Amino acid sequence: MLSRHCRLLSFASSLLLAGGAASADEGMWTFDNFPSALVRERYGVEIDAAWLERVRRGTVRLSGCTASFVSPNGLILTNHHCVASCLAQNSTRESSLLEAGFIARSRESELDCPTQIADVLERLENVTARVQEATRGLDERDANERRRQTLTELEAACENASETSGNPLKCEAVTLYGGGQYWLYQYRRFDDVRLAFAPEADIAAFGGDPDNFQFPRWCLDFALLRAYENGRPATTPQHLTIDFDGPEAGQPVFVAGHPGSTDRLLTVAELKTLRDRTLPPALLRASELRGRYIQFAKTNEETSRIVQDSLFGLENGIKVQRKQLDALLDDALMVAKQDAEADLRLRVGRNSALAADVGDPWQRIEQALAVEATRWLPYEYLEGGTGLNSRLARYARTLVRAAAERPKPNSERLREYTDGFLPRLEQQLAAPVPIYPELERLTLSFSLERMREWLGPDAPLVQRLLRAETPDEVAARLVDGSRLADPAVRMALWNGGQAAIDASTDPFIVLARSLDAEGRELRKWHEDNVEAVVEAAHEQIARARFETLGTSVYPDATFTLRLNFGSVQGWTETGTPVEPFTRLDRLFERETGQRPFRVPASWQTAKASLDLSTPFNLSTNSDIVGGNSGSPLIAADGRIVGLLFDGNIHSISGAYWFDTEKNRAVAVHPAIIREALTKVYKVGPLLEELRLAN
Amino acid sequence: MLSRHCRLLSFASSLLLAGGAASADEGMWTFDNFPSALVRERYGVEIDAAWLERVRRGTVRLSGCTASFVSPNGLILTNHHCVASCLAQNSTRESSLLEAGFIARSRESELDCPTQIADVLERLENVTARVQEATRGLDERDANERRRQTLTELEAACENASETSGNPLKCEAVTLYGGGQYWLYQYRRFDDVRLAFAPEADIAAFGGDPDNFQFPRWCLDFALLRAYENGRPATTPQHLTIDFDGPEAGQPVFVAGHPGSTDRLLTVAELKTLRDRTLPPALLRASELRGRYIQFAKTNEETSRIVQDSLFGLENGIKVQRKQLDALLDDALMVAKQDAEADLRLRVGRNSALAADVGDPWQRIEQALAVEATRWLPYEYLEGGTGLNSRLARYARTLVRAAAERPKPNSERLREYTDGFLPRLEQQLAAPVPIYPELERLTLSFSLERMREWLGPDAPLVQRLLRAETPDEVAARLVDGSRLADPAVRMALWNGGQAAIDASTDPFIVLARSLDAEGRELRKWHEDNVEAVVEAAHEQIARARFETLGTSVYPDATFTLRLNFGSVQGWTETGTPVEPFTRLDRLFERETGQRPFRVPASWQTAKASLDLSTPFNLSTNSDIVGGNSGSPLIAADGRIVGLLFDGNIHSISGAYWFDTEKNRAVAVHPAIIREALTKVYKVGPLLEELRLAN
Repeated sequence: MLSRHCRLLSFASSLLLAGGAASADEGMWTFDNFPSALVRERYGVEIDAAWLERVRRGTVRLSGCTASFVSPNGLILTNHHCVASCLAQNSTRESSLLEAGFIARSRESELDCPTQIADVLERLENVTARVQEATRGLDERDANERRRQTLTELEAACENASETSGNPLKCEAVTLYGGGQYWLYQYRRFDDVRLAFAPEADIAAFGGDPDNFQFPRWCLDFALLRAYENGRPATTPQHLTIDFDGPEAGQPVFVAGHPGSTDRLLTVAELKTLRDRTLPPALLRASELRGRYIQFAKTNEETSRIVQDSLFGLENGIKVQRKQLDALLDDALMVAKQDAEADLRLRVGRNSALAADVGDPWQRIEQALAVEATRWLPYEYLEGGTGLNSRLARYARTLVRAAAERPKPNSERLREYTDGFLPRLEQQLAAPVPIYPELERLTLSFSLERMREWLGPDAPLVQRLLRAETPDEVAARLVDGSRLADPAVRMALWNGGQAAIDASTDPFIVLARSLDAEGRELRKWHEDNVEAVVEAAHEQIARARFETLGTSVYPDATFTLRLNFGSVQGWTETGTPVEPFTRLDRLFERETGQRPFRVPASWQTAKASLDLSTPFNLSTNSDIVGGNSGSPLIAADGRIVGLLFDGNIHSISGAYWFDTEKNRAVAVHPAIIREALTKVYKVGPLLEELRLAN
Repeated sequence: MLSRHCRLLSFASSLLLAGGAASADEGMWTFDNFPSALVRERYGVEIDAAWLERVRRGTVRLSGCTASFVSPNGLILTNHHCVASCLAQNSTRESSLLEAGFIARSRESELDCPTQIADVLERLENVTARVQEATRGLDERDANERRRQTLTELEAACENASETSGNPLKCEAVTLYGGGQYWLYQYRRFDDVRLAFAPEADIAAFGGDPDNFQFPRWCLDFALLRAYENGRPATTPQHLTIDFDGPEAGQPVFVAGHPGSTDRLLTVAELKTLRDRTLPPALLRASELRGRYIQFAKTNEETSRIVQDSLFGLENGIKVQRKQLDALLDDALMVAKQDAEADLRLRVGRNSALAADVGDPWQRIEQALAVEATRWLPYEYLEGGTGLNSRLARYARTLVRAAAERPKPNSERLREYTDGFLPRLEQQLAAPVPIYPELERLTLSFSLERMREWLGPDAPLVQRLLRAETPDEVAARLVDGSRLADPAVRMALWNGGQAAIDASTDPFIVLARSLDAEGRELRKWHEDNVEAVVEAAHEQIARARFETLGTSVYPDATFTLRLNFGSVQGWTETGTPVEPFTRLDRLFERETGQRPFRVPASWQTAKASLDLSTPFNLSTNSDIVGGNSGSPLIAADGRIVGLLFDGNIHSISGAYWFDTEKNRAVAVHPAIIREALTKVYKVGPLLEELRLAN
């Protein structure tokens, strides 16, 4: 699934890189720079400002996903896998909504999704000049510091101004083109989001991990949420409408969404660092944890239920990282990257003024990465959290750091504790979500054991944590002794500030306190010696690219709103054409009666009434990555003709380049959504709201 | 640990590659070509024919390990981890000899190691001319076939001749220098091997996986076996003696042993195939299985015991493969390999007669690997056994194939069923070793699940195996329904031949029968289209190397007897010197009371009597790899001054090149063996046998 692939906060995710010139239907375009002329020329379709505004305001950003309004009453269409957390949070060890699905027969019975938010991008403001002015003449470290402060100040000023105007907006600073541009993206935020409908996981994720990132496909990966305001369904006149008949093969389609992160213009040194240092150990850890989860799930029915959501996400991440590594091991890719880099360096060299100005940012990055390598392991395991894989440990660190940061002036805090982020942080801490001690112990013990392996048993940090206890014993002592699973306990520590933190004897708080100074030192070291250098170098590379290659480019993905264009099409796999549509009949042919190829009882019961020729999933050549999950697939007429939920296996290399021949996006066909809602789930009032009632 | 790292039978392990010119103390030399002149020059030590013969005849080959005779009565010194299988085979779910260790207080109480053998190399015969003559003028496929037949015929003739002469020997064909040389290695074989002494795993493998492949180190990784003949201790006048005082820093030392497999002269295309196609998926599988094992071990004390030996081997393999991948991802290595290859091609190009003769074997290998990629996954999962990870499944396949092969003429059989291999096969089938059904189900279910992931759920093989059952269900049905865990059942099928196999309803036999034709087809395809081409190409490369670079070279490791030279020394790790000796005192400082840093009670009890300054482990620059485990470290005077058991972390790259600066071997110091036997374990008669009695 395309759930956004989150990486350790490090150079690769903290950098926002300048994008390349588009070829074919490649490109994740910002709404201010959409290539309408190119689309007119290639597809004969006119995308004007009104079209762009309608689509922008109908598109929704969720936590890590995309969605769209599909009724005037706040109804939101997204993927089932984008509501998996909400389903898990509303489950218990005795009963799983992931398994059972959920239908709200009335609005009153819609289920709270306690950590979900829904953002709509209302305004975009270019603040590049103000940021560049603030950092002018400073060295790399000071510029890095000042840039962060400036962005925080701009966000705060923007939010204050919107409050005053009576239309409060969330203002988020966005860095595009690696510092070539800075923007304030201003969102209308809904923080009361509820679940209206979700099918059973057996049909939403039919084929499970074996089918994930594959096509042909048969996944009913959709769900319905609803945004609320002041306890009532939100008014959303800007909603999009669904064309339940769906698109034709070859039809032009557009995807609006929030692609999470691409690394298409990393330097060769950065790509090799991912290939050699980052991805292989991450894959080993994830694979081992997969084994532990799967074996844990076999213990009994309860363990099987409580680990399901975590396992699902983990397996998705493994497939993504595995194919990313494959892409980086592909000599064709690495040679193309080396050639492009050599070409740009040559162009810079030919322009003596530019060359004098930018110097050799590629070498500076390479040097910074060599510096990073010297403390990478402690940085990753301690400050990156790899060594303390536990939700309770993360709560504790957030509480300890928040107590220290919140009293500081806004612009002097660590970025994630600035005013703009605090409401979301508080929502997450207050959310009454289930924590299963046995699962906490598993992940914590596992991560402690791997920390000992990678840092070595004689490392001071390891000695402190595991001097006279096994990883299992440490994990049990911490988890069993902690009360942080209780939201009231967390909120008391949040509201009690530093005094409450100092007085706490909760073992996780005690641990987080004892590790905080060392973690902060590692972070500061990393910011000053790696991030500051790499960010400054990428600004120069972006500038070099703009000056020598022009401005018709798109930035790397940053989990901000983008639009791309393409068409409904399959591809050719080792000589065999893959058709762009699947049909319902083949679902029943492929079922085995056993997970993950089990068709749920609801569909068995309804089978006789179903049109087995109904299209199920479809593929397009849309340029998407994780974070686009739940994106509306939009026709030229502005109607929704599909619900994006995945890519084919070749799409994963899209992190680094766009493979025109084989990279395909995968969407749920709206006709199968109609078939499901009307004949299988008979969802009552929702049918009318979606204009599906007879 | 250096237990031999076994890979899937494929080009990389089936090929035996020509070696390179040695630099520094590099080199795994055959006994017929030891560079005595070089040693004389560098170390002033005279290694003459008598010295070589004495060491050769005192060195022993075990299954996957090395050892040496250390008394005239068949007493064998080797590593604890080399007897781990024997300990596990003599354990039950209630009690583990791995944990408890074992001391035979008399010869009568020595424990049978039912699958162990001990071989001593008595003769080496060069048969190159006969093999080359047999294949002259044939195309690659026919030559490959004929070569196999010829080697089988030579083995059989050699064994017959030795029988007739009254001194029966095991004759094994050995391919060196990728076909540059063929030899018959002739062994005296002991197939009755018993365990006399093993310490507890807690001290033998102190530090466990975290310390594995690390130095400084404190592992008492030694054990004592005894070879028997006709039910009586073997007479072994050729034994070596131990110098319990051990070596000095800088002292020249020699390692005799059986390095398992190196890939130092693979072509660049082969190395990239390992890097891109072979190692990453193997590591993912191994890591997940590690997670399953570890979680399974936590179920209760019994599961912890029965999985211990498997987990140990798996974790060792993960560390080896992980560092092998690191080495291949190191641009410095890949560039050096590319340069060396380009240089050799240039030399060939300058010699027109040679160029006309050998053509472009590098390109032929690259093409064969591209062909291999088209069917690699089914080949690996079915014929390679990756999809059916189960000891019962392996028994079943052996029985099914043996029934079909044994009636054929010897030279027409699959190599592993020719007469020379049958006694060993029968020993393994007849061995009364414990099979734990819950562990069988785990590994089988795991491998079926991964087969479905990698081949895809719609692959015909997967459809056949998992059409209507989950991997767990299939595994349970097969394991619970099978009686192959009983040696008597296996032997009835072995002795009953094809009729017994045809009549069997054992579910594993039924499964093996049903898969046999497909597996054989894949194997034949692989032999004809990959192995035959690659082997012929390597013969040409070896020839090119001999002709242009001379003959002072050593062949890649092939688990045959080798000798190398070097000296006792540490190295410099990121600027800090690492001393070549550790001492007993630090063991007690590093213990935590918890596994894997727990010092067993026997040592705690004896602590007051111990000399804490006793040297414990030591490092040398000997060029070793897996298979060298248990090798005697030999001084110039021919006495044993150490017991090799591991390498440092840099030694793992020795698979591909020898890193003079950092590659170090790690050995048990004989003084700690003396301290252990005399003061901790007080082994009675064994002390006299080792001349340690007061």
